[in-house]
Amino acid sequence: MVAVPSREIERTERLERDEEPRLRSTRGPRYDVAELGFRHYWYPALLSRHLGKKPQAIKMLGENLVFVRAHGQPYALFDRCAHRGMLLSEGSCLSEGTITCPYHGWSYDVTDGALVAALTDGPQSAVVGKGKAVRSYPVEERNGIIYCYMGDGNPPPLEEDVPEEVLSPDYTFEVVVSLWNSNWRAGIENGYDAAHAPYVHRNSLRWRTAMRMQPGWGGFVESMVEGKYLRQASRSDRGYEGDFPGVGHWPRHTRLRKAVARLGERRPRPQVQTNEFRLPCTIRNRYWYYSHVRWAVPVDANTSRTFQALVGPYDGARAKAFKLQYWLWHRWVFHMWFNGQDDSIIGKLDYSAPEQLFRPDSSIVGLRKYIEAHARTSDPVPGVPEPDYSGERYP
Amino acid sequence: MVAVPSREIERTERLERDEEPRLRSTRGPRYDVAELGFRHYWYPALLSRHLGKKPQAIKMLGENLVFVRAHGQPYALFDRCAHRGMLLSEGSCLSEGTITCPYHGWSYDVTDGALVAALTDGPQSAVVGKGKAVRSYPVEERNGIIYCYMGDGNPPPLEEDVPEEVLSPDYTFEVVVSLWNSNWRAGIENGYDAAHAPYVHRNSLRWRTAMRMQPGWGGFVESMVEGKYLRQASRSDRGYEGDFPGVGHWPRHTRLRKAVARLGERRPRPQVQTNEFRLPCTIRNRYWYYSHVRWAVPVDANTSRTFQALVGPYDGARAKAFKLQYWLWHRWVFHMWFNGQDDSIIGKLDYSAPEQLFRPDSSIVGLRKYIEAHARTSDPVPGVPEPDYSGERYP
Amino acid sequence: MVAVPSREIERTERLERDEEPRLRSTRGPRYDVAELGFRHYWYPALLSRHLGKKPQAIKMLGENLVFVRAHGQPYALFDRCAHRGMLLSEGSCLSEGTITCPYHGWSYDVTDGALVAALTDGPQSAVVGKGKAVRSYPVEERNGIIYCYMGDGNPPPLEEDVPEEVLSPDYTFEVVVSLWNSNWRAGIENGYDAAHAPYVHRNSLRWRTAMRMQPGWGGFVESMVEGKYLRQASRSDRGYEGDFPGVGHWPRHTRLRKAVARLGERRPRPQVQTNEFRLPCTIRNRYWYYSHVRWAVPVDANTSRTFQALVGPYDGARAKAFKLQYWLWHRWVFHMWFNGQDDSIIGKLDYSAPEQLFRPDSSIVGLRKYIEAHARTSDPVPGVPEPDYSGERYP
Repeated sequence: MVAVPSREIERTERLERDEEPRLRSTRGPRYDVAELGFRHYWYPALLSRHLGKKPQAIKMLGENLVFVRAHGQPYALFDRCAHRGMLLSEGSCLSEGTITCPYHGWSYDVTDGALVAALTDGPQSAVVGKGKAVRSYPVEERNGIIYCYMGDGNPPPLEEDVPEEVLSPDYTFEVVVSLWNSNWRAGIENGYDAAHAPYVHRNSLRWRTAMRMQPGWGGFVESMVEGKYLRQASRSDRGYEGDFPGVGHWPRHTRLRKAVARLGERRPRPQVQTNEFRLPCTIRNRYWYYSHVRWAVPVDANTSRTFQALVGPYDGARAKAFKLQYWLWHRWVFHMWFNGQDDSIIGKLDYSAPEQLFRPDSSIVGLRKYIEAHARTSDPVPGVPEPDYSGERYP
Repeated sequence: MVAVPSREIERTERLERDEEPRLRSTRGPRYDVAELGFRHYWYPALLSRHLGKKPQAIKMLGENLVFVRAHGQPYALFDRCAHRGMLLSEGSCLSEGTITCPYHGWSYDVTDGALVAALTDGPQSAVVGKGKAVRSYPVEERNGIIYCYMGDGNPPPLEEDVPEEVLSPDYTFEVVVSLWNSNWRAGIENGYDAAHAPYVHRNSLRWRTAMRMQPGWGGFVESMVEGKYLRQASRSDRGYEGDFPGVGHWPRHTRLRKAVARLGERRPRPQVQTNEFRLPCTIRNRYWYYSHVRWAVPVDANTSRTFQALVGPYDGARAKAFKLQYWLWHRWVFHMWFNGQDDSIIGKLDYSAPEQLFRPDSSIVGLRKYIEAHARTSDPVPGVPEPDYSGERYP
Repeated sequence: MVAVPSREIERTERLERDEEPRLRSTRGPRYDVAELGFRHYWYPALLSRHLGKKPQAIKMLGENLVFVRAHGQPYALFDRCAHRGMLLSEGSCLSEGTITCPYHGWSYDVTDGALVAALTDGPQSAVVGKGKAVRSYPVEERNGIIYCYMGDGNPPPLEEDVPEEVLSPDYTFEVVVSLWNSNWRAGIENGYDAAHAPYVHRNSLRWRTAMRMQPGWGGFVESMVEGKYLRQASRSDRGYEGDFPGVGHWPRHTRLRKAVARLGERRPRPQVQTNEFRLPCTIRNRYWYYSHVRWAVPVDANTSRTFQALVGPYDGARAKAFKLQYWLWHRWVFHMWFNGQDDSIIGKLDYSAPEQLFRPDSSIVGLRKYIEAHARTSDPVPGVPEPDYSGERYP
């Protein structure tokens, strides 16, 4: 991965030529209509600890699903009885491995959605074995997260779509799930956005932002494809403080903050941080000793289910220490406060408004171009690896 | 009325031949669009005890009506002042027999909706006697229920559309009115549905279901026309307990329940029960010593006003005993609990979902075919009796 | 201004000829579509005391605006950041005279909406000075009210659109602002309506209605143009009590009320009262010693922001006495109770219902015709006075 000199963002140049800059968007046609997400991917659906003996209704990509656990395994069906349209998630599991509709007792095999019994028509019911089954969805459970393949045909291996560290037994992590009141695209664009952090998070107490002076700005961002990820590769013209016409000096650091930052900077800690995107809706940040993985799973046009995982390469006593640190600090300061600032702000965004992008939006433009070019349009063919685009540059 | 041997339901047979069974419906075209009910029928509107001196707003079949009482009689008008569109139900009855709009004092004769005065234009107002009246609706009050004819032209006698026992002075009954959160068709189909009871009501304490073993299933249901009613005539292949593939033994009666049922069955009570439908939206069940009449009156697309009446052929002391029994037991166990289970379950039904019917749905199919063939399309002609279709078989 | 003999309202005459009187409306085509008000006028937006250092979001004529105060002056911008569509009203004023978007720190000059800084792109950001500014709105502040010009091009002087007394330093007044749950047209038509008062306000304790016998009716109302105002010029056939067919005697004054009225009438106070309308949405009533100005500012199709001002030609001690009287009496009895009756009643009006007008609606018909003929369709030309239509008669 080679750092590339900054260049003016194409969009900003166009602003000088055109009459109607507000009418343009850098969203490609496929991404523009993907209000409910891209199909043919594995998505996290719910946490293992949230699926017990009772069916759980989960809405994803605009579809209503019902999750059940049988013989220790999770399964997912379309949440509508084929008989009369009743919600299966209101039903119950009379025997392990089946789910029974609460209206007339139609009972489905949770593994494939086949109708195995219609209780109110007797054991010899002729409808069993005829007619269409309820749609079933491929499901896998790994390390406390239940994933569901939202697509047609045979799914690829889970590893194709999920960051390696959350699948590996060598890592430990903690997850929080919450509903965000915004379209999933606003959620991932915000995560990949190079520019909002110094402003939105300016008063966060998060350790790594409070203990060091953070840049107030940084201009053009170029991203490069690195395997499955689009990674921010370079960021030009960073600055820490400045005088702005009309606004004055900014950021306006308090003495306390400067003192804390000086203290933090005396500890020689490698300032490594990456910001990566992975299809379908995953943001990964890697830090010195842990990484943060966040999914913005589409629910409906105005809601996404956000999974935030803090992941570290630990086991044994170090894993326990990591978890303790998570519950004492990161959960509240990072997942709830810091990322709650994002939830709060993008809930006030009019995502369909005309846009006028600026230099740091090269990160957004790159992300949108990458998604437009790489999102799956049909079923992946199991066994045939996707081509390696590593080294492609965005925007 | 002759019992007829069971036969495979036509719909189930078709399931084997067709590619897309989920796209078909057994609703005929007239019934399919009757989201707001069928016009040209008498419907119960409200209870006598709910109509005092103040105007009452009642929405039926998608129309806003206002009911008022004058000289002891109930009347109904369209709930919109002809002047500027104000709700008349927000007005008041300045003199008995009129209703006055709260905005400018336009006053209507409640018997025919004619404008009799426009208070704010003086006693000589020229608008009186000109222009269109507010629409008035034929209304009748019998035995504590106020009925309204929701149609054009002259209405037929009330007896044409209302079960005889609730109109007769020789019967006593108690009624409860409640709003159900579902389309009226889901309400009456559920009432006529032969199959849901063993599953939905499996844990009801209702006397006649708890004190006897109830069949877990029963197959094909044929209905016959019996005067004004479509009556379930036969039900084949009943069964009480069985082993179902995938699900196991069902129903799973507790020992207590079996003991109670054995106790109940030692009392030789005739096991007479009928399940009948009558247009426009009436379900009648007749038992040994009383009957149950239920209307699902359309309010809007997602709401029906349910009238449940328990009716017995009693007077004097026996009527009092019947009412006491109702208030001590049936109201809570039957009307609230048992039928509340229906309200709760059909509120979760997607009535417009594609369907896949099974053998016991022959009751639903028969009901739909009967309604499609017999629902009034124009005004009944008073004095000309409707033809007698008795003996027709459904499905 | 000459009083003109009453004549039958054209609309009422038509009622006798036509088959379908309910299908007609006296709303002209421009007024009929003006659901969100007429553009190219000055409207009151908010009170001075409600605009401090924090940005205030105000919706008017269907548009979202943000008001800010800088160096003592109020300013208004379109409430959407040109960058990504964020609500500017959620931002803050880092320096006086600018407003900064809460997402990426785009900062606008509040005087013209020009982008002066993009904090997260550094002081040299190339986007500053390029691209479109956020729309700014002409704003003026007078005597405690902040007005906004909702139109294109150069606005006329504020005096063109606002009653002279609320702009004059020689008057004192008190204002209350409230949201009414009805379209603005229902609000101004109600204010100009000659007929509703004796019925809707029949039990108001407002001084001037309680202390004198009010007419129960008055027939045809003719209005004349008087400078900027349409003024009710004559009202024929007033009456105080009468016997109405079907309804009986009305109004039914209590003895107490009659006694109070007799008492009030012994004080020889000139019974001067005018009812005037002024574009865009202003009702003015002038009384013996004060006047009442009310705006129904369109917010959305079903809401208007009502400004009610009680205005008197006082200063010094008399102004204080006037304010004291306002806070002890008028605010509660007139602005809250009396006009609250209007808010409550027109919130139940179906403004799009078919209408059937009567003689006193000549006031409404006149108002509608005047508005249709006189509402601005394009920018007024500053310096070129609008023609004087004084003396035109409506309807």
